[in-house]
Amino acid sequence: MQTATAVRSSSKNKRSIKYVYFFGGGRAEGDAKMKNLLGGKGSNLAEMTNMGIPVPPGFTINTEACTHFYKNKKQYPAGLLDEVEKNLKKLETVMGKKFGDVQSPLLVSVRSGARVSMPGMMDTVLNLGLNDNTVKGLIMRSGSERFAYDAYRRFCQMFGDVVLGVEHEDFEHLLAKKKKQRKIKLDTELSAKDLKELVAEYKALIRKKTRAPFPEDPRKQLRMSIDAVFSSWNNKRAITYRNLNGIPHEWGTAVNVQAMVFGNLGEDSGTGVAFTRDPATGANKFYGEYLINAQGEDVVAGTRTPHPIADLRKDMPVVYAELVKIYKKLEAHYRDMQDLEFTIEDKKLYLLQTRTGKRTAQAAVKIAVDMEREGLINKREAVLRVEPEQLDQLLHPMLDPKVKVSPIAKGLPASPGAAVGKVVFTADKAEHMAEKNEKVVLVRLETSPEDIGGMAASQGILTARGGMTSHAAVVGRGMGKCCVVGCGDITVHSKDGYFVTKGKKVKEGDYISLNGNTGEVMLGELDLIEPKLTSDFRTLMVWADSFRKLGVWTNADTPHDSKVARDFGAEGIGLCRTEHMFFGKDRLPLVREMILAEDTKTRIKALSRLLPLQRKDFKGIFRVMCGLPVTIRLLDPPLHEFLPHTDKEIAEMARQMKVSKQKIADLMQNLHEINPMLGHRGCRLGITYPEIYRMQVRAIFEAACELTKSGYDVIPEVMIPLVGHVNELIFTKRHALEVATEVIKKYKVKLKYNIGTMIEIPRAAITADEIAKEADFFSFGTNDLTQMGFGFSRDDVGKFLPSYIEDGILEKDPFASIDIKGIGELVKIAVEKGRGAKPSLKIGICGEHGGDPASVEFCYKIGLNYVSCSPYRIPIARLAAAHAALKEG
Amino acid sequence: MQTATAVRSSSKNKRSIKYVYFFGGGRAEGDAKMKNLLGGKGSNLAEMTNMGIPVPPGFTINTEACTHFYKNKKQYPAGLLDEVEKNLKKLETVMGKKFGDVQSPLLVSVRSGARVSMPGMMDTVLNLGLNDNTVKGLIMRSGSERFAYDAYRRFCQMFGDVVLGVEHEDFEHLLAKKKKQRKIKLDTELSAKDLKELVAEYKALIRKKTRAPFPEDPRKQLRMSIDAVFSSWNNKRAITYRNLNGIPHEWGTAVNVQAMVFGNLGEDSGTGVAFTRDPATGANKFYGEYLINAQGEDVVAGTRTPHPIADLRKDMPVVYAELVKIYKKLEAHYRDMQDLEFTIEDKKLYLLQTRTGKRTAQAAVKIAVDMEREGLINKREAVLRVEPEQLDQLLHPMLDPKVKVSPIAKGLPASPGAAVGKVVFTADKAEHMAEKNEKVVLVRLETSPEDIGGMAASQGILTARGGMTSHAAVVGRGMGKCCVVGCGDITVHSKDGYFVTKGKKVKEGDYISLNGNTGEVMLGELDLIEPKLTSDFRTLMVWADSFRKLGVWTNADTPHDSKVARDFGAEGIGLCRTEHMFFGKDRLPLVREMILAEDTKTRIKALSRLLPLQRKDFKGIFRVMCGLPVTIRLLDPPLHEFLPHTDKEIAEMARQMKVSKQKIADLMQNLHEINPMLGHRGCRLGITYPEIYRMQVRAIFEAACELTKSGYDVIPEVMIPLVGHVNELIFTKRHALEVATEVIKKYKVKLKYNIGTMIEIPRAAITADEIAKEADFFSFGTNDLTQMGFGFSRDDVGKFLPSYIEDGILEKDPFASIDIKGIGELVKIAVEKGRGAKPSLKIGICGEHGGDPASVEFCYKIGLNYVSCSPYRIPIARLAAAHAALKEG
Repeated sequence: MQTATAVRSSSKNKRSIKYVYFFGGGRAEGDAKMKNLLGGKGSNLAEMTNMGIPVPPGFTINTEACTHFYKNKKQYPAGLLDEVEKNLKKLETVMGKKFGDVQSPLLVSVRSGARVSMPGMMDTVLNLGLNDNTVKGLIMRSGSERFAYDAYRRFCQMFGDVVLGVEHEDFEHLLAKKKKQRKIKLDTELSAKDLKELVAEYKALIRKKTRAPFPEDPRKQLRMSIDAVFSSWNNKRAITYRNLNGIPHEWGTAVNVQAMVFGNLGEDSGTGVAFTRDPATGANKFYGEYLINAQGEDVVAGTRTPHPIADLRKDMPVVYAELVKIYKKLEAHYRDMQDLEFTIEDKKLYLLQTRTGKRTAQAAVKIAVDMEREGLINKREAVLRVEPEQLDQLLHPMLDPKVKVSPIAKGLPASPGAAVGKVVFTADKAEHMAEKNEKVVLVRLETSPEDIGGMAASQGILTARGGMTSHAAVVGRGMGKCCVVGCGDITVHSKDGYFVTKGKKVKEGDYISLNGNTGEVMLGELDLIEPKLTSDFRTLMVWADSFRKLGVWTNADTPHDSKVARDFGAEGIGLCRTEHMFFGKDRLPLVREMILAEDTKTRIKALSRLLPLQRKDFKGIFRVMCGLPVTIRLLDPPLHEFLPHTDKEIAEMARQMKVSKQKIADLMQNLHEINPMLGHRGCRLGITYPEIYRMQVRAIFEAACELTKSGYDVIPEVMIPLVGHVNELIFTKRHALEVATEVIKKYKVKLKYNIGTMIEIPRAAITADEIAKEADFFSFGTNDLTQMGFGFSRDDVGKFLPSYIEDGILEKDPFASIDIKGIGELVKIAVEKGRGAKPSLKIGICGEHGGDPASVEFCYKIGLNYVSCSPYRIPIARLAAAHAALKEG
Repeated sequence: MQTATAVRSSSKNKRSIKYVYFFGGGRAEGDAKMKNLLGGKGSNLAEMTNMGIPVPPGFTINTEACTHFYKNKKQYPAGLLDEVEKNLKKLETVMGKKFGDVQSPLLVSVRSGARVSMPGMMDTVLNLGLNDNTVKGLIMRSGSERFAYDAYRRFCQMFGDVVLGVEHEDFEHLLAKKKKQRKIKLDTELSAKDLKELVAEYKALIRKKTRAPFPEDPRKQLRMSIDAVFSSWNNKRAITYRNLNGIPHEWGTAVNVQAMVFGNLGEDSGTGVAFTRDPATGANKFYGEYLINAQGEDVVAGTRTPHPIADLRKDMPVVYAELVKIYKKLEAHYRDMQDLEFTIEDKKLYLLQTRTGKRTAQAAVKIAVDMEREGLINKREAVLRVEPEQLDQLLHPMLDPKVKVSPIAKGLPASPGAAVGKVVFTADKAEHMAEKNEKVVLVRLETSPEDIGGMAASQGILTARGGMTSHAAVVGRGMGKCCVVGCGDITVHSKDGYFVTKGKKVKEGDYISLNGNTGEVMLGELDLIEPKLTSDFRTLMVWADSFRKLGVWTNADTPHDSKVARDFGAEGIGLCRTEHMFFGKDRLPLVREMILAEDTKTRIKALSRLLPLQRKDFKGIFRVMCGLPVTIRLLDPPLHEFLPHTDKEIAEMARQMKVSKQKIADLMQNLHEINPMLGHRGCRLGITYPEIYRMQVRAIFEAACELTKSGYDVIPEVMIPLVGHVNELIFTKRHALEVATEVIKKYKVKLKYNIGTMIEIPRAAITADEIAKEADFFSFGTNDLTQMGFGFSRDDVGKFLPSYIEDGILEKDPFASIDIKGIGELVKIAVEKGRGAKPSLKIGICGEHGGDPASVEFCYKIGLNYVSCSPYRIPIARLAAAHAALKEG
């Protein structure tokens, strides 16, 4: 925008705003830096022109014209058409042809080109300028009537479809009819006469459908096509794409009008696409394919098999040598791997496009590290070249991307990777089959903490309900296990051993495959590609860490997870959830005994039997994390989560606990909650039953003291969940301090520790100044903060969130990426108030957002000390934190 | 505090801070304005002394000494004891007696006295100064050994109990033993010898229990009593009382040391209490009672029946005349009804206390209006004299306060008033019995919208679950019907037709009585006092309105409620909940048909049959509210609320709808939500099913247009619930505008209307600037805002809120009175951001807080335009709004 603004502000005459930029004849008015104004395509065409690379000349109508168009009821800015006309004249001069001329007609393409590539989302018109007159000139110039009418036919179809809105199928129908009449199969078998007839038939169709004749005037065609490209910015497809990719709707698109060159003028012509390095592996070799006597769309359509680019060396040695020179020049110039489109017209090479090439994660890492070593880019750039989110591909198994899949259902992609296995419906069954080395996928309505064993035993998890932070999603990500949740397409009939999706019945034991990156569910046993971490990856992470300022901690509940996280580079545990430990088979009966207790004494007795088990849990984790802080959250879920669900389980519990079934039923009625997420949990439990938190704190400090005596460096941090009022923290902290002091005194050791709180209740954020005075640290629980801040139950949001995203009401799932304007504002308020009251306050985030790159950047910007995420997200968070620091300057 | 601070800041010597204030001999160092420093009692004793009213002389240790005591580990401020000694000397001089003197001993009382009265909460010691020596002087002076030993015995017991912590019962036990020995029944029958023996026995008891002798030194007694009074400020009773009454814990108490006078010196002595007007009716006549030859505690104890004050005219005409002169003087001086305590010692009258008298609501209103008419106070003062909350007594039936009750259970007092009726467990049964003119009380685990008919038919409602904004509570208040919720004491066995409380079984058909002001549940049929609104009440409300600046609107869903509200003075409807209309017997099948619809077309068809019914609903309300704005909230609850619950109901619905039971079961599974409060409701429904909101908007505008045509002045305001993101408002508003425009055009009328939104999601408050741009008005839904801001489910909060209040973690139930620091801050942020973006924004509140006086004051302070509350709360809100405006100045 800078350029345009400069032009505008340097002139007092409104008419002097420049909307159109010419390129051609070795010089261009724009360059690569003007991407925001000219779009990616336009600015690169200008840049290439200036570099002396052969590009068909043309001009770009900038994005400001488009935004003006939308701001002014689809009116063009004043003077735009004059500028177009002027540039058209220039183009005629450079090309030595005339628009609409019978002798030597100038044909152009009209293409969209936004700031960032939106492949296939917007519209394109080729061969514009043809009509019943100019086609004669094309015949003359090409010497081929067939070629000319083929071009004319294609133009009519494209213009009719894209600009005039006649159904593509109606044209295809006429084409098919013609081939049937001629008893031929391929388009190429159609004669010039057939094609000429088709042009007439197409025009008749257009007249019928649009109640207007086909516009023969090339200038009218051009004007209408510009209109259509502008309008295509806001077609439904494009809006959805932008919503999915976080592209602002107000950017608008540029329009590129460019002289046509033809790759289908005979055996000396051709077209192709190429990458300057291998986009799959990153190997430093020229990679691509081409077709002789073909147009771009033929390469894409796949009706003919293109040749590998190396063959061009034999077919057209001179052209190939020039292409090699150009690709090297472009890569050196843009200092990144390029994706090229080229056309050869009568042995003359034209570059139609260059852009930064898309690549796999593996290729991205290799190219970045290689280019640094080649001296092409520095370490800083290398780190910025890999998108953090991409790393997921390196950390999890993937479905072979070459295999086409037919999903039978689609849910939310809650945990990345892929899984293949036999369908099972219960956690027990999953464990049972896994013991026999069978691969299974656990399919549930939703999961609960008692399913953890079965989830661990499964290859992947599929649930019908729940959102991006539902139990299955959180646990799945924690285990690095592929998980698809909220899959409303399926109806689960666990008892009868099947699920139904779109009328299809899938039974227990049937194979299914899950894609955790897309949320797709496929029938059968698809091939998996196992992940591997290369030394290039490790190099890149070392570089990233050298730039990063934000700490990266982990959410881990077991020694195993802690080990995985530490190996991935975790610098501490930001969230150790103690409730998961309560579900162990040796603990659940004790936990239930504690819940059944009718007085404090009995409760304390049950808790005292849990104490040694909890102590053992913590020792295991402290050992693995030796030297690093371990933040342990005291019990958080409501007690009813630990009770049985089915009649059978109730009977079993009654037998085990030696109480009547009625007593358990009464207890369940008493503990039942209408909105458990807003119920008796978190520190509310620690306040009504201080003995529970006291036991946990005792276990933490006994474990820490014992290990400290054995020479371990233990740094425990006690975290109180769900604080909304400072008094809740004061109350629970008092108990924790009492126990901690007593234990440390008993063991006679020196131990540094902190007592802090989650900030996950909106009220806590609003009153963070009061709370900070009592806390050693804050840790944002952005899952709950999002739930309560939005009023979205993470378990139920699946019922409306998809349509919210589709309708553009929300840009992104706020459970996946922090909602910066709302929830982020609450976080910011809390940071400001908290640090205002206590400047030394340590602040982190342990919600699932801790592993989302956009959220990591936000956390860095507002000055958090660390983010904490699930183990498999740590490399992503490290890289995202490096990006955030580098982007800042 | 001002006085003390002034003294302190005017002196550089720390020792010169004054802690003790003398009164007596016709002059006092303090006065009535020094209430904060000297407490209510102390400042009034000083004031009366200065007025020349006979008050036993003494001195007051101020509240700053008490706060110093608590801030400094229970140490007295330096110099305090010197000041006490100095004042004691002064007292001796004035009284002509000496503390600890055998000849003419000075006896004193030591009493607490905080800024506000906390009756019976703190401790008192009388007759202090007695020991085995001084008792002899008392015998001499009184001429009665019996009197002297009785005083001594009482002192030992009081001091032993209050100061030394020996159980009251242990003393009573010795007293009873003595009477048994002597074979007598009354204390008065004990001889001097008996009493002397008792003194010795009491002292032995004290020595045994405290392992220390009884302190014979009067100065030690005094010092220990001051300690005890200071300490009593923080006894459990007092803390609870302060929590319940919103009295800050940091205020502290003053201590009054005052010369004893005795009403039990013979037939020329006596004691009594009196009110300057009738505290029950407010009638302007001297009211009170007295006893001859008695001490204050005898009047209170009720062992002897006191005489009406008028009889004193005969008994002691001179004293009576003086008393009448004094009471008139005091009332004229304090310009309010006074509550007096007096003692007559040997025909000499002493006033022991004067304070503003507590009174019933009826009396408060009458006294305020009368005093204005008498010219004693102005209208402004009259309005301030009635506490808004008190008005509840005038608006609802009450249990006779004279009848002692024995509650069998206690819940939350959710809706004031009282109810008496037979227990029923289902809404149907309630309706059925009400039709037969039987009075019933509906007892449920919790209520849901389909119970509304039964609730309306009942005298009162009792639920085992739920908080102050649960369904039963909200509906109960709306109907002005007594309601007790969250009564955890009871276990409901609806099917078997009984509930159990503390082991007691109460069956269907048994009578119970509810007190909605206390939450108490009593067995049996208690007497009710019906409310009546006097012309004084109406006068006071007119005065209140003349000061009030805040609008008072109502929450009403029916023409009947609207009428009640308008009669109570509502200036508009701030919340008309449309879902209640959906539960009508003629509508529910249509609503269910709409929910069952599998496509939009079928849904629209069902909705179109609902349309005329909704239109009729709105017409009814618009008619009643003619000329006033009516804010209609579009559908808010999740659709599953409209589905059946029991198998029987499911079967019935299946039959009615002609679908399989399985289909209904599937639908229920699909619609089930784990946390419905955070689920698919509010505008989320209006976004996934725009046709629902469109039907409702159509009904609103068709109703409005039809009535406008008939000459009614209709002002509809459409309110979108549960908006958290501006895009939600944009989406739903677009649909609403479309329909409104179309309908208005069709009817060809002029109609002013507004489209606004609830602010009830924390994120909405945080992003109120964005939302304001799209809204004509904001209405704070502080119920939901409190739920989400605190993370408290209103339905489940009963499990821990009581202990939160008890432990002092929360001062008040945030659903009953707005939490100013947290939720209030969110409201403030929203008001500032909203008005910042749109200065003309109309802002109200329609949560249940709209009828809570403290919340009304808050709403006024932050600049809201109106509060909206249930009809029976309107007078309270009007008066509270007047108070808020008057308090501001």
